[in-house]
Amino acid sequence: MATLGLIEYKDASPQVRAVYDDIMATRKTDWVKEMIYVAVSVTNQCGYCIASHTVAAQKKGMTDAMFKELMAVVGMANETNKMVVGYQVEIDEQFKASR
Amino acid sequence: MATLGLIEYKDASPQVRAVYDDIMATRKTDWVKEMIYVAVSVTNQCGYCIASHTVAAQKKGMTDAMFKELMAVVGMANETNKMVVGYQVEIDEQFKASR
Amino acid sequence: MATLGLIEYKDASPQVRAVYDDIMATRKTDWVKEMIYVAVSVTNQCGYCIASHTVAAQKKGMTDAMFKELMAVVGMANETNKMVVGYQVEIDEQFKASR
Amino acid sequence: MATLGLIEYKDASPQVRAVYDDIMATRKTDWVKEMIYVAVSVTNQCGYCIASHTVAAQKKGMTDAMFKELMAVVGMANETNKMVVGYQVEIDEQFKASR
Amino acid sequence: MATLGLIEYKDASPQVRAVYDDIMATRKTDWVKEMIYVAVSVTNQCGYCIASHTVAAQKKGMTDAMFKELMAVVGMANETNKMVVGYQVEIDEQFKASR
Amino acid sequence: MATLGLIEYKDASPQVRAVYDDIMATRKTDWVKEMIYVAVSVTNQCGYCIASHTVAAQKKGMTDAMFKELMAVVGMANETNKMVVGYQVEIDEQFKASR
Repeated sequence: MATLGLIEYKDASPQVRAVYDDIMATRKTDWVKEMIYVAVSVTNQCGYCIASHTVAAQKKGMTDAMFKELMAVVGMANETNKMVVGYQVEIDEQFKASR
Repeated sequence: MATLGLIEYKDASPQVRAVYDDIMATRKTDWVKEMIYVAVSVTNQCGYCIASHTVAAQKKGMTDAMFKELMAVVGMANETNKMVVGYQVEIDEQFKASR
Repeated sequence: MATLGLIEYKDASPQVRAVYDDIMATRKTDWVKEMIYVAVSVTNQCGYCIASHTVAAQKKGMTDAMFKELMAVVGMANETNKMVVGYQVEIDEQFKASR
Repeated sequence: MATLGLIEYKDASPQVRAVYDDIMATRKTDWVKEMIYVAVSVTNQCGYCIASHTVAAQKKGMTDAMFKELMAVVGMANETNKMVVGYQVEIDEQFKASR
Repeated sequence: MATLGLIEYKDASPQVRAVYDDIMATRKTDWVKEMIYVAVSVTNQCGYCIASHTVAAQKKGMTDAMFKELMAVVGMANETNKMVVGYQVEIDEQFKASR
Repeated sequence: MATLGLIEYKDASPQVRAVYDDIMATRKTDWVKEMIYVAVSVTNQCGYCIASHTVAAQKKGMTDAMFKELMAVVGMANETNKMVVGYQVEIDEQFKASR
């Protein structure tokens, strides 16, 4: 559509990616919030919420690679959340300071 | 307590383990049910249920190795359950026959 | 396919069932793991995971009777997990030894 | 405190209970909402929420009998919710009208 | 159907609503239980259970306004359940008396 | 400890905050991943996981304001996830493209 064409992130040179990264960093709160929303929706298994907010996150800059990494973190967190409870791990004193 | 001493499964020779395995196979429904109960309780993160039924499963023959494998399966299932939904995977026609 | 036909577990005589039981005991870890996977998937309500792993468990020897018993245990565990928390039941000292 | 003493619902005669029931019916939305909040909190297994809102519901008129019935319904709902999904029950056409 | 027509709750005058309210108060346990069942089913996200029990609750007297209020309470409870845990709020001593 | 003292983000001038923001943007994947882990752990209500990963996220640059915003998004997502299912909202065709 554009005269010079639109370069997909995955096809971009390191220099162009740096520009894209900078743009995304500038408006990062947008897609961070959408990705957190998707993370919760995947954990709750809400089909509608996953479908609509994945699209929203993509529109705000989430690439396929970022989505895959999101899924990996969400999957891993769901696994370790349960295993920690299954092994009856107590909260360390050092972590209670986070409150 | 016993004259000849009680051999822990983990210290047993292959021959003794075979005997133990046979005993456990005979009464397998007992610990299988307890392990399924633990699997659900870990997924639901019910502290009391995990603690009490892990003890119950141990009394019915669940070894430490079996518990660790149980945790590995439960953790992996929780991970893949969420990732499948996150990736919006559809149910294949071939699996609908299971109903 | 077989000359003598294949006898369904539900139609088998006690003697034949004993042979089947023995076969299933021998390869029991296969279907035990699949059934634990199904137990977690049902608790998480992952439609795809339930459909695909129920088929997998059936292929590894899970009969209809075993599936029904699995559902009964999973249903009961989900009920008691919540009631224990609702009644604010504390973990008994004796169960803490399971860690 | 009162001259005639305060009659606990569980100790009341049918006539007195009828008066209590009438009072509770009049202000029913208060404890209904609290009981729904408790039902969700028990399903989510939020210890703090269960403890604080059970007290709140009691203050607004929830008796011990009502709490026990609440737990029975919540436990049963959690059981059947999972079994319905485990048995892969489809939504009947007639129920789709509820949307 | 009726000679005088059936007046919808939402179209009723305050006097007629009072009659309806009285009727619903009389048979209140029916729809209260159905609404609690719906509250749990929504929290567990069981599509079949939500669809069938919403219809059942409607048949027992739940109006659209009541359903909307139910959804508001269930949504709010799910939000605060998680935030309380996220902020690591401890159970106050005063609430422990509810056990 | 440092000669010039360490300026807390909350006490920093807009200019200093810009530097801090730049640092955080550079290493943003670190705290983004930790915050996603916390979002899942809060949704799953895993006490240990919340406590330990909140500390980890703080060490990687998550401020109190960011944590509060995280909790607001997680709370809101949990609320809307359930309400969408309660109202039986269908997935729009336009969102199916996200797969």
